[in-house]
Amino acid sequence: MTSTLHTLESTIAARRGADPSASYVASLFAKGLPKIAQKLGEEAVETVIAALQGDPKAVTGEAADLLFHLLVLLNEAKVPLSDVLAELERREGLSGLAEKAARKA
Amino acid sequence: MTSTLHTLESTIAARRGADPSASYVASLFAKGLPKIAQKLGEEAVETVIAALQGDPKAVTGEAADLLFHLLVLLNEAKVPLSDVLAELERREGLSGLAEKAARKA
Amino acid sequence: MTSTLHTLESTIAARRGADPSASYVASLFAKGLPKIAQKLGEEAVETVIAALQGDPKAVTGEAADLLFHLLVLLNEAKVPLSDVLAELERREGLSGLAEKAARKA
Amino acid sequence: MTSTLHTLESTIAARRGADPSASYVASLFAKGLPKIAQKLGEEAVETVIAALQGDPKAVTGEAADLLFHLLVLLNEAKVPLSDVLAELERREGLSGLAEKAARKA
Repeated sequence: MTSTLHTLESTIAARRGADPSASYVASLFAKGLPKIAQKLGEEAVETVIAALQGDPKAVTGEAADLLFHLLVLLNEAKVPLSDVLAELERREGLSGLAEKAARKA
Repeated sequence: MTSTLHTLESTIAARRGADPSASYVASLFAKGLPKIAQKLGEEAVETVIAALQGDPKAVTGEAADLLFHLLVLLNEAKVPLSDVLAELERREGLSGLAEKAARKA
Repeated sequence: MTSTLHTLESTIAARRGADPSASYVASLFAKGLPKIAQKLGEEAVETVIAALQGDPKAVTGEAADLLFHLLVLLNEAKVPLSDVLAELERREGLSGLAEKAARKA
Repeated sequence: MTSTLHTLESTIAARRGADPSASYVASLFAKGLPKIAQKLGEEAVETVIAALQGDPKAVTGEAADLLFHLLVLLNEAKVPLSDVLAELERREGLSGLAEKAARKA
């Protein structure tokens, strides 16, 4: 289970060259970064709304959408998921409000 | 590396009962779901902007912030990360535009 | 020109009872507050992206979309536009950073 | 009342050259477009959350914040408010779903 995001990252990378008419991921890459960023923003809004409605099933689905589009954005931005996780681990050495200060510095 | 998010999920859960004046996570939980959802939305906006500015280092940091606050939101919504990853794996059996149709159905 | 928003506010209110299959506004009201809020969030994301792309024509169109859906949201929330403008005028008596402090208090 | 936004637009333009340490608007302009766009996105998220919480007073305040930062963004993007209102009026000649089709074309 824990490698789901890495597997998905690879799948997304592999679909980059696919036919946009046959692959949703390829169609997103064909539309370019602004459209990919827009989708990420929209999925975040939907996650916020699902959470405020107190609907765990909707939160699960919207959080999955958000993670999926975050991986597409990271690929387009040429940022490996491992870099993002390494950044999270680096911060995890810190704790509490000190962590927040570090994040915002 | 792959278990970073699961470890962080546990750390966040453990901080739930901490002193809000000493723990950023505890202070978020003390403020409640609307504030947590607001933070998620804000981090998504910052990720969008970092991506559009073409700044990989900023994207890395903002994506880390986004994942962090998503885990806080999932905890508050009582949704295990494993449920979200299982949902992503379920969809991964599908592909391309069929996947999108399934997501939106 | 200056009464455009008030006229639009009235038009939106009048469409509340219209056939959702014939009126976009009526279809939004039929879907309910979460969907209306989602649209507002999406239009804000699109405005952000248009601005960062430095495209004044796109900014004009997206800002119009944002104002339109804000008026729909205000109607659904039973908040008159005049209340929002009165709040802006009240703050305008203040200035600079003092204004921000007042806004956030 | 109807000229509130035009008056505010002028006030914001006049503060462009003010001391950033004394004027919130001038401090936003000094930070540049990405920060201004971020604020717009954040205020939209706060408006969404206030609406979903069913709090008319909070909706009034957040909608005022959203309009305020939209005017700052429009100034930075060199888009006059009158252009945005003209675009809304142009669409208002259309109606219902036809209007939506026109907006999205």
